[in-house]
Amino acid sequence: MPTKLRVALIGHGFMGRAHSNAFAQVGRFFDLPYQLERAVLCGRNREPLQAMASRWGWRETATDWRALVDRDDIDLVDIATPNATHAEMAIALARAGKIVLCEKPMAISREQGSEMVEAARNVPTMVWFNYRRVPAVAYARQLIDEGRIGPVYHYRAVYLQDWPALGATTKTWKLSKAGAGSGVLGDLLSHIVDLALYLNGDISEVSAMMHTFAPGREIDDATMAMARFANGSVGSFEATRYAVGCRNRNQFEIHGQLGMLRFDLEDMARLEYFDATAPPRLQGTRKIMVTGPNQPYANNYWKPGHVIGYEHTFIGALGDFLQALAAGSEFHPGFADAQKVQVVLDAIERSAGSRSWVAVE
Amino acid sequence: MPTKLRVALIGHGFMGRAHSNAFAQVGRFFDLPYQLERAVLCGRNREPLQAMASRWGWRETATDWRALVDRDDIDLVDIATPNATHAEMAIALARAGKIVLCEKPMAISREQGSEMVEAARNVPTMVWFNYRRVPAVAYARQLIDEGRIGPVYHYRAVYLQDWPALGATTKTWKLSKAGAGSGVLGDLLSHIVDLALYLNGDISEVSAMMHTFAPGREIDDATMAMARFANGSVGSFEATRYAVGCRNRNQFEIHGQLGMLRFDLEDMARLEYFDATAPPRLQGTRKIMVTGPNQPYANNYWKPGHVIGYEHTFIGALGDFLQALAAGSEFHPGFADAQKVQVVLDAIERSAGSRSWVAVE
Amino acid sequence: MPTKLRVALIGHGFMGRAHSNAFAQVGRFFDLPYQLERAVLCGRNREPLQAMASRWGWRETATDWRALVDRDDIDLVDIATPNATHAEMAIALARAGKIVLCEKPMAISREQGSEMVEAARNVPTMVWFNYRRVPAVAYARQLIDEGRIGPVYHYRAVYLQDWPALGATTKTWKLSKAGAGSGVLGDLLSHIVDLALYLNGDISEVSAMMHTFAPGREIDDATMAMARFANGSVGSFEATRYAVGCRNRNQFEIHGQLGMLRFDLEDMARLEYFDATAPPRLQGTRKIMVTGPNQPYANNYWKPGHVIGYEHTFIGALGDFLQALAAGSEFHPGFADAQKVQVVLDAIERSAGSRSWVAVE
Amino acid sequence: MPTKLRVALIGHGFMGRAHSNAFAQVGRFFDLPYQLERAVLCGRNREPLQAMASRWGWRETATDWRALVDRDDIDLVDIATPNATHAEMAIALARAGKIVLCEKPMAISREQGSEMVEAARNVPTMVWFNYRRVPAVAYARQLIDEGRIGPVYHYRAVYLQDWPALGATTKTWKLSKAGAGSGVLGDLLSHIVDLALYLNGDISEVSAMMHTFAPGREIDDATMAMARFANGSVGSFEATRYAVGCRNRNQFEIHGQLGMLRFDLEDMARLEYFDATAPPRLQGTRKIMVTGPNQPYANNYWKPGHVIGYEHTFIGALGDFLQALAAGSEFHPGFADAQKVQVVLDAIERSAGSRSWVAVE
Repeated sequence: MPTKLRVALIGHGFMGRAHSNAFAQVGRFFDLPYQLERAVLCGRNREPLQAMASRWGWRETATDWRALVDRDDIDLVDIATPNATHAEMAIALARAGKIVLCEKPMAISREQGSEMVEAARNVPTMVWFNYRRVPAVAYARQLIDEGRIGPVYHYRAVYLQDWPALGATTKTWKLSKAGAGSGVLGDLLSHIVDLALYLNGDISEVSAMMHTFAPGREIDDATMAMARFANGSVGSFEATRYAVGCRNRNQFEIHGQLGMLRFDLEDMARLEYFDATAPPRLQGTRKIMVTGPNQPYANNYWKPGHVIGYEHTFIGALGDFLQALAAGSEFHPGFADAQKVQVVLDAIERSAGSRSWVAVE
Repeated sequence: MPTKLRVALIGHGFMGRAHSNAFAQVGRFFDLPYQLERAVLCGRNREPLQAMASRWGWRETATDWRALVDRDDIDLVDIATPNATHAEMAIALARAGKIVLCEKPMAISREQGSEMVEAARNVPTMVWFNYRRVPAVAYARQLIDEGRIGPVYHYRAVYLQDWPALGATTKTWKLSKAGAGSGVLGDLLSHIVDLALYLNGDISEVSAMMHTFAPGREIDDATMAMARFANGSVGSFEATRYAVGCRNRNQFEIHGQLGMLRFDLEDMARLEYFDATAPPRLQGTRKIMVTGPNQPYANNYWKPGHVIGYEHTFIGALGDFLQALAAGSEFHPGFADAQKVQVVLDAIERSAGSRSWVAVE
Repeated sequence: MPTKLRVALIGHGFMGRAHSNAFAQVGRFFDLPYQLERAVLCGRNREPLQAMASRWGWRETATDWRALVDRDDIDLVDIATPNATHAEMAIALARAGKIVLCEKPMAISREQGSEMVEAARNVPTMVWFNYRRVPAVAYARQLIDEGRIGPVYHYRAVYLQDWPALGATTKTWKLSKAGAGSGVLGDLLSHIVDLALYLNGDISEVSAMMHTFAPGREIDDATMAMARFANGSVGSFEATRYAVGCRNRNQFEIHGQLGMLRFDLEDMARLEYFDATAPPRLQGTRKIMVTGPNQPYANNYWKPGHVIGYEHTFIGALGDFLQALAAGSEFHPGFADAQKVQVVLDAIERSAGSRSWVAVE
Repeated sequence: MPTKLRVALIGHGFMGRAHSNAFAQVGRFFDLPYQLERAVLCGRNREPLQAMASRWGWRETATDWRALVDRDDIDLVDIATPNATHAEMAIALARAGKIVLCEKPMAISREQGSEMVEAARNVPTMVWFNYRRVPAVAYARQLIDEGRIGPVYHYRAVYLQDWPALGATTKTWKLSKAGAGSGVLGDLLSHIVDLALYLNGDISEVSAMMHTFAPGREIDDATMAMARFANGSVGSFEATRYAVGCRNRNQFEIHGQLGMLRFDLEDMARLEYFDATAPPRLQGTRKIMVTGPNQPYANNYWKPGHVIGYEHTFIGALGDFLQALAAGSEFHPGFADAQKVQVVLDAIERSAGSRSWVAVE
């Protein structure tokens, strides 16, 4: 008889929908020792909240997240609200002993993040850096672990969007300092920094610039950074919402002594791999379709050649988290991992302010 | 209060899984006036059947599909069994007044198909030619309807797989004459013929060849055809399981007087479009990401730039079917549409046998 | 002291220009024991002829090719005139003992071709099937010879253009039966048939169709064929000038038991290779840049990563021919090879006429 | 009767060969009022020098460039020697009134460059930033001039090679401080800075880093920079010889309010263009084949769809230079333009040294 895990979700926007789907679907694609109960959906606008709860199978709704803190019929709370609200919620919930899942960026400052880690020291946590669970990204990690690209020389990542540049600036907290804390720094750069830490290890120092194109806007529309990694490689990062022509291009390239890897979220079923150990005349960048066999998540979803989509990165993250939870093993990325991202973002922000190199930590 | 629609699904293999997911998910992505009940999962191997029913939320299981025929607590039956069994089931169920959904190919002969159409004359039907519901394919249909490529000159389609060539010939009914009726003809060519009929209209005549690479195998490993369409265009079709290097390349190209369209299932989020009405110096094939806005299914799933996967083609087909059902409008492709595919497949088979051109109908 | 080779070129259109360039440049990129003299440029319109001779360094001009036949100060004659004129010229020149080079298609009928072969039995010949000399194509031949793709299952070739479809039908002999003999059959299909014979060996039988889109035009705008090869593989060919969106897409794909090769002239610096002997999880189609090292023509042109263009296929063909000539070894494709193409084209034409399969030979 | 232009070329390495070809071929593809005489090939190793002169049609050879200075039978001298030698030669030759062409980087320091500009104030000059003459690059310039991408937000350029990383470090002056002055800074970054100035205008300030991977090497193996442009856009530059997997990837992307342009030298026949003024549902990045009609250099080379290669960028540069010379109009890039590149390179070098932002000028 599987253990019940009673779940509350705070947030019913786009992310609330993606998370709801993950909770609904995870048991279909992952073997879990848990029986997930979608117990409470929490949000502030009663009407859409009700509609969403009914559509996604949440048993009840609530309009004040604080009510969740003391309910002992809730085991796990998932926070999918605007960035600025994460810390307060997570700290209160963690202190109350809840398992806490939190959207990225975990916090809007290094200090907040630090408090969150401290508060959650004794509860399982996860931060939704969902792109680690793209099969092609997890596969990149495998290939690196196997030594296939050797010592790394270059890490190059961009996250390019264009919706505000194209005028899609309908009211969203994402463009407000109060709601988001920052612009692309927290929204996009956090993703590619997380992937860099995951794939290439610690960053030692950064030199960065931040730029705002829209008059009067308080947040960064574009942020760039050069970096040195602890492993001796050098790297660059760029996140922008003014890359006209790029809807959602989250891309990295890693050049090592023995090969290259390249990934682009807009073509998420594939990983590009250059094997420099092949005879020179046979060398070329190959596109590997990462749908199995013997590749990450190949047994979870469909058949080789049959692709999954954006939503499965959330399902995969949740599936991995719940399996780790059941096994009693540590899950990554938890709050401590996400705090490493916060530390890099903090260094980037300070570097852009001081117009100089800043050491990370 | 939404109408209840009580569903039985026959088949618990790969397709049973894809269909189960569609029934489970369709209400999340489509506004439906129905409350779908996943009532019965029907299959022959009791143990995996039970496991699957429990995982995918089917209320009960059954091991004899005949029991469904007379149950008046079942409104809709979905057939996801080997090809050779479709006709008998569909005919009995349709005669009993059930709404009938059926996997493709609908039948293993033109004659079977004809009987199925007759039997189902008075019930709503659907055949799972799911690739019509890839957003990029539906979008191609839109662009054609808008006259963007003008009168068509060429239609070129391939469906290329390689699993048997690479030795993945573990026991499967797909490679047996008894189970599948044919090889790539019914399995792959049916898909690209359906898309051709959908996108380019009726086929007038065909000249075809069929080939078996594996010694002793009774079915076609590769089938090719040249065709003339009623609209004056010429076309070609090729389906094979020996296209080493191609996992699941279902691709079409259409050249018209005013432009070109190209699609490849392995890159299903995009449609390629060449606009020959643009100034010559600005002409080029553009890759359009079909995730919205103002593109098919953009409002059903996620945000622009956030892709869906293979499973959503089933969800989309079911969603469209149920909306048509509620509206009392005719759905395509139903049995009558699928029979048109059977007629073409029949002509292809006869052409390959007679080594001559064969008129369609 | 290198031997002098005194050259005459008949034709001063686009091909005359490409050949002139080859004669001017071949000595820069190939080590030759010959001193080529661009002696006579022959054509019918005196004024442009003079201008072209002066620009491309032809010593003198002539307006009647017959005058070349008996001149003993001419060693080699290159025919770059409309198709219908090749046979008469080549036969007369070969009988006079000239080395004869001839544009493709060699002839406008199988019978003509046969006479040409007979007449040229004792002189060195070459037919300008220049695409054999694309480094990536020659490299494909190498990989096949090395057994890298194993026994072949499928050969698939298209040659797609769109200029007449887009209205670029300014007077050209290419669209006239009198000048060209045929439409895409001789102009485009001949190229891809030659490459197929080069890469995949003899063709046993064909079933074909020819189609004319333009009202009143006497030649084929589109020709398609299905084929069986002597090596047991099956194939398809398509050539058309109505593939809107495709400027010059000369493409082949070969699927063998051990791998796949793919080439597209519009991206002529690369060969795509799928190695099915790699571990499944590392398999993917790689794009190999064929600019060296250890690849065909790598020592002739520039450095790895530095591409060549269309004109170099002529330079390469001529360089290989002259090196074979000096070595006394047989060059391919000569007239006998080109006649094999004629035989296939003839079978295709007859098949299209009879609407049935036709054996080749 | 065309004016004679008597040419001397200093340097008989790889660049000497590329330049020789340009001098030999320019008259075939460009209408020129000059009769170019390949008078003197100058180099230090007599034997290969002789062989090269004979192969490329240089009338005589010389082993001391100084002899050229006072020869009044030489009108134009082209310098294709290691970077460190350019300044002395160019200054002496310019002072003697020669037309001076010089390989890039023009100089190994800003100071050298400044003296060169001064010395050459009264003679026509050209620096071989040949990539401006890739048709697709010149076409990008045209599209920008036409306002097609609007005000620019982002400029992103990389020049990635991998030969030293792969061990191809046979003795070459390119890896020595004495011969090259710098590593990728002068060799690769100079190219992409020149293209940036050409396409996006002046750079205001930079923050850069330089890195050497090979122990004991004195030059930069990788250099990165962030930049602000005078037009308000932000940009990044990266040049490296350790980008394993990239043979010769000289790539830029420009995002403007109305569209995007993208170019990659490894696919030099194409320019990618995203038109953000198209209806959103029809937007997509199109690949435009830049071989005409109505595109740069379309009338110089072959037919639409028939590509040119690396060598033609030199032919195009020389053709444009000679036409400007004949017309008495100013040619770009001359020494003054190349000095702007030197100034940026100098700022980058200082920024990397000081680990801070440096203003350009």
